[in-house]
Amino acid sequence: MNEEHMGIALTEAATLPKGFRAAGVHCGVKPDGKPDLALFVSDETAEVAGTFTTNQVTAAPVVLCRERLEEGTGQAIVMNSGNANACTGLTGMRDAAQMADVTAESLGIPADQIYMSSTGPIGIPLPMENIAAGIRSAVDELSEEGGEAAAAAMMTTDTVPKHYTITFKIDGREIRLTGVAKGSGMIHPGMATMLAYLMTDAEVERGALQACLSSAVNHSFNRITVDGDRSTNDTVLFLANGEAGNQPLQFTHPEWAIFDAAVQALTLALARKIVSDGEGASKLVTVRVVGATSDADADLAARAVGNSLLVKTSWAGGDPNWSRVLCAVGYSGAEFVEEAVDIDFDDVPAVRGGLAAGTPVNELREIAALNSYTITINLNHGDGEAVIYACDTTEAYVRINVEE
Amino acid sequence: MNEEHMGIALTEAATLPKGFRAAGVHCGVKPDGKPDLALFVSDETAEVAGTFTTNQVTAAPVVLCRERLEEGTGQAIVMNSGNANACTGLTGMRDAAQMADVTAESLGIPADQIYMSSTGPIGIPLPMENIAAGIRSAVDELSEEGGEAAAAAMMTTDTVPKHYTITFKIDGREIRLTGVAKGSGMIHPGMATMLAYLMTDAEVERGALQACLSSAVNHSFNRITVDGDRSTNDTVLFLANGEAGNQPLQFTHPEWAIFDAAVQALTLALARKIVSDGEGASKLVTVRVVGATSDADADLAARAVGNSLLVKTSWAGGDPNWSRVLCAVGYSGAEFVEEAVDIDFDDVPAVRGGLAAGTPVNELREIAALNSYTITINLNHGDGEAVIYACDTTEAYVRINVEE
Repeated sequence: MNEEHMGIALTEAATLPKGFRAAGVHCGVKPDGKPDLALFVSDETAEVAGTFTTNQVTAAPVVLCRERLEEGTGQAIVMNSGNANACTGLTGMRDAAQMADVTAESLGIPADQIYMSSTGPIGIPLPMENIAAGIRSAVDELSEEGGEAAAAAMMTTDTVPKHYTITFKIDGREIRLTGVAKGSGMIHPGMATMLAYLMTDAEVERGALQACLSSAVNHSFNRITVDGDRSTNDTVLFLANGEAGNQPLQFTHPEWAIFDAAVQALTLALARKIVSDGEGASKLVTVRVVGATSDADADLAARAVGNSLLVKTSWAGGDPNWSRVLCAVGYSGAEFVEEAVDIDFDDVPAVRGGLAAGTPVNELREIAALNSYTITINLNHGDGEAVIYACDTTEAYVRINVEE
Repeated sequence: MNEEHMGIALTEAATLPKGFRAAGVHCGVKPDGKPDLALFVSDETAEVAGTFTTNQVTAAPVVLCRERLEEGTGQAIVMNSGNANACTGLTGMRDAAQMADVTAESLGIPADQIYMSSTGPIGIPLPMENIAAGIRSAVDELSEEGGEAAAAAMMTTDTVPKHYTITFKIDGREIRLTGVAKGSGMIHPGMATMLAYLMTDAEVERGALQACLSSAVNHSFNRITVDGDRSTNDTVLFLANGEAGNQPLQFTHPEWAIFDAAVQALTLALARKIVSDGEGASKLVTVRVVGATSDADADLAARAVGNSLLVKTSWAGGDPNWSRVLCAVGYSGAEFVEEAVDIDFDDVPAVRGGLAAGTPVNELREIAALNSYTITINLNHGDGEAVIYACDTTEAYVRINVEE
């Protein structure tokens, strides 16, 4: 059953689900006057799921979000761009807590129902007067149409805001599922930070919501690579407020598969959008490894290729350089026999049995010139499979990250 | 006892040890007319040690060198630049063997005493007619003064030839130890390949020679990073022909420490030269991790920092960006507590207890503007130490590797 048969429709809109409001404002964290504070609010208490960076160096808002997630309910997400509130010690913890306190006070809801994120430069205390004023004006501007403005306020070096809306039916009720994200952009002296918030008016049992989100993140945000670095602030939050009035969704619900597929489709669309808009990126390349001894081995090989600077610079040059791909597989740690490896660029054979397949190079160049294509690596050694979505590495990437 | 007290003198000369001759010629592998074939010959049979790439995808010459090393003696190294003879299947194996055969015939010595390397583009058969003619003319040009010409013929995108000569005394005899190397350059559609050959007229017991080389490589060539990729062709060979007439060196020889220190000094000098001449590199940064739970943990942290694209682009910008350093340590897998970490740029504190140390940023900028400096990361968590020599990542690096 594919998404179309499930009645799942995905659009690039930022239409919020029933009972959600949002706003995006400028409060002065960013010096350039661009929007830098976003607020998402549910009228009713929502079930909340989340996943966070695995980096041991963790920003203050991530620490607080993790604590709040132990209760697993919430009503709002407040975030600022332009400052990551990371490596800020006790000051940072106090500031993150104050972001929640000011939001709670302005909205008249308990502070432990507020989740928060920050993204931008590291090691500098948040300008809390600006943030507090920004939160108050965001509360004033909250509206059902505020999704787009909020997504725009999340941006750092992103060149486009990132949002999708999916609609489908559960128990005959129309369900809306909306996702907003910011990509791996960074501004001096910051880090690549990936943030995504999902909101739905479906009623979902909390354990199922977390399991569904964890699985979807594993197949989407955890399968993209821009530069192989991992941020101190990565956060994905999922709020389900139940306003659609469906029977509570859990694994045993007859239409669980529809909800699960919608979440997978939304996270994958956002993840691909993030890679396509990677810093300086000009191409989205899907690296697919099949025929590995195990899925874990396939994953090793796909990540080695997707993270190889030599491979990624060859993509930037439109060069169908299968030898750099094979070399990266060689040091990936995956089990394989060189003489058995096949590599295709889309449907065009580049390597057969570890050697050049004999395809005229111009045919391969045509594929490598595309904005988006797939490199399939068949190790012919087992049934393991994995996929990684990666972008190329261009001079613009270096320029963006060298400049202060 | 430091190197000076041991009477070890290192110069940038390529003066060959007694009984060694070399030559470098152009034979037409490189289209631009530059030297592309090098030959090193010992008049007498030498003991040979070697270390090779750990990449599973291994070039034909590496496969053959590994076989020959089982016997452990040799008289010559023949190498070409401009073509890596990798991913070339049975043709490649036959061509590598033929390189040895032609050399053996021209020199009048057995083929199994000839070691060979290739570096350059991958997946293209060697032009064997050119190579064979080149070997013959190199044999004609062999001379005691040929070290420099041979080192020049090893270059690919290296901007300078790399050679050092060390002299010292063992048993009152003057010993010469000479090293030549090519760095991690690559040309379309090739790979970073690191080659180094060490030659000495000392007499050294074979097991001790291999142990000494393996340890030295581990502290030098295995501690440098340009772009984190590993080639199919990396090779280090060490020939000791015993012409100096010393008592055979082994661990129990009273002056073993002098020989060992000389080999360590030579490999470290060559390794640092390779990083300094990394593609597009403008800075050599030494990343030193101390206070880790174990040396292995220190190594994880140092490599994460030295390989981080975000860290390396900040170096290119002369930006003393300690937060990117701390972030890379965070995802390295090393055990540590964020609040205990100290980071120094040379002797200037950047981080104390996981937070900005309060040093005026201009003081840190002065260090980060240097061509060469050390970042010391103290995890304050144990006694483990490691060091990595890394270069910055510049737009020029990407340009070199994007261009076809």
